[in-house]
Amino acid sequence: MHSCPKHIKHLVVKPGGKVKLDRIDPREVDFLGKEDKARAQLAEDIVEIDRLQDRLYAEGKRSLLVVLQGTDTAGKDGTIRGVFNQTGPLGVSVTAFKKPSEDELARDYLWRVHHAAPRRGTIGIFNRSHYEDVLIARVRKFAPKEAIEARYDQINAFEKLLVDNGTIILKFMLHISKKEQAERLQERLDDKTKHWKFNAGDLEDRLLWGEFQKAYELALGRCSTEHAPWHIVPADRKWARNCIVAAVVRDTLENMDPHYPKVPWKASDFEIP
Amino acid sequence: MHSCPKHIKHLVVKPGGKVKLDRIDPREVDFLGKEDKARAQLAEDIVEIDRLQDRLYAEGKRSLLVVLQGTDTAGKDGTIRGVFNQTGPLGVSVTAFKKPSEDELARDYLWRVHHAAPRRGTIGIFNRSHYEDVLIARVRKFAPKEAIEARYDQINAFEKLLVDNGTIILKFMLHISKKEQAERLQERLDDKTKHWKFNAGDLEDRLLWGEFQKAYELALGRCSTEHAPWHIVPADRKWARNCIVAAVVRDTLENMDPHYPKVPWKASDFEIP
Repeated sequence: MHSCPKHIKHLVVKPGGKVKLDRIDPREVDFLGKEDKARAQLAEDIVEIDRLQDRLYAEGKRSLLVVLQGTDTAGKDGTIRGVFNQTGPLGVSVTAFKKPSEDELARDYLWRVHHAAPRRGTIGIFNRSHYEDVLIARVRKFAPKEAIEARYDQINAFEKLLVDNGTIILKFMLHISKKEQAERLQERLDDKTKHWKFNAGDLEDRLLWGEFQKAYELALGRCSTEHAPWHIVPADRKWARNCIVAAVVRDTLENMDPHYPKVPWKASDFEIP
Repeated sequence: MHSCPKHIKHLVVKPGGKVKLDRIDPREVDFLGKEDKARAQLAEDIVEIDRLQDRLYAEGKRSLLVVLQGTDTAGKDGTIRGVFNQTGPLGVSVTAFKKPSEDELARDYLWRVHHAAPRRGTIGIFNRSHYEDVLIARVRKFAPKEAIEARYDQINAFEKLLVDNGTIILKFMLHISKKEQAERLQERLDDKTKHWKFNAGDLEDRLLWGEFQKAYELALGRCSTEHAPWHIVPADRKWARNCIVAAVVRDTLENMDPHYPKVPWKASDFEIP
């Protein structure tokens, strides 16, 4: 049901495929054409997403789940702002998954994720997601290796459940280079209005860059499925990142083709008292 | 902490005051000045609300709760779209209160409302609210009279709890005329893309127009407090309604004056590895 415009089809991870992130250039944007044209297209896509979302909401039968993943500073917040800032807030909900609470840790790792599933008629956006449970959890060994190994299949089954019940799932890995991350972290240090975004823990994660990339490769390879594909988004350039995500979201919504629902009555059945 | 531009101060219900809705003309818009100027101001307010919301989010200490009430077709959805459509979805959440579920009915009526309190750093919008429990609940006698009577004080105490803990509360009653409602209901019958919004139950409620207005008068009078004031918004004209709500929200956010937080470190403490 998800769909993707031709010029960015190559960013979809083939189910069962092996992923090598270093073969994908985070600065590669040629396939988007000229920047000013791409930006104009983005502006149009944003408006169209809002229009389609309104029909999705009226229809009230299906939902769209957009999963955003990426290392620190990859631009998850920026993507939400850049792509969905003009989408009616009635029909969009963002869930930011942070360190699980005690209450959440007292259940299986998908418990809180299931709870955040988007209502029918809406677009749900996950800012980080259950994939952290095979990413940081793997790198930092938050669970025994066998438990982590079992999670990929569990995640595929969980996503299938959502899809079978009317949710379309799109997953985006915002792929930035290590150099770009250094620049963005430095920017957070240099710009006082960005200090609140700086987290010393991000520097520790950076030392494990290679291990995180490997964990991503595993997750993308094992969990890109026909029913819930992963997209690798070259994200060093913010405008390109937004263009790609917006294009896929728009295309998918157009493909879903939501309709204002038919009602079981005629207007003439009623008279306003 | 809430605040309101001078030219619309007269729309704030005085605490302890008696409310007579028929003294307020739902079409009165002269105090907004010329329409084109007011619309330009609205466009500016919308952008400013987004900017201020970003600072509120960065600060992460306080929240803003916007309560929208009004009879059917009063324009609650339209206000959300008209005022908050350009506010970053990261920091806005809308809760639409519908018929309570069995699970919710198994608790007191404020239980589900408390659960929906906005996170620190965000704007929460209630599309309908706990006021339904003294509005439709009163008119339709969903609870014994004494139980309903006790709720006004309970609501004031509940809202005080939120305010004392860092939430600013703004409440708006979208005030439309009975004639305007007839036109809007007819429009929902005539326009196929609006059929899904038409609910035969709205016609039954319309027959009780007078009783609903009386229930509103009671609720507005008893629950407009210093800490959580009610505003009566002349709402027959959609642009005027949006102008009023946006102006109060912007003014309140400016008054809250959220700041990017100071951090307990200097940029030079860190080096990017």
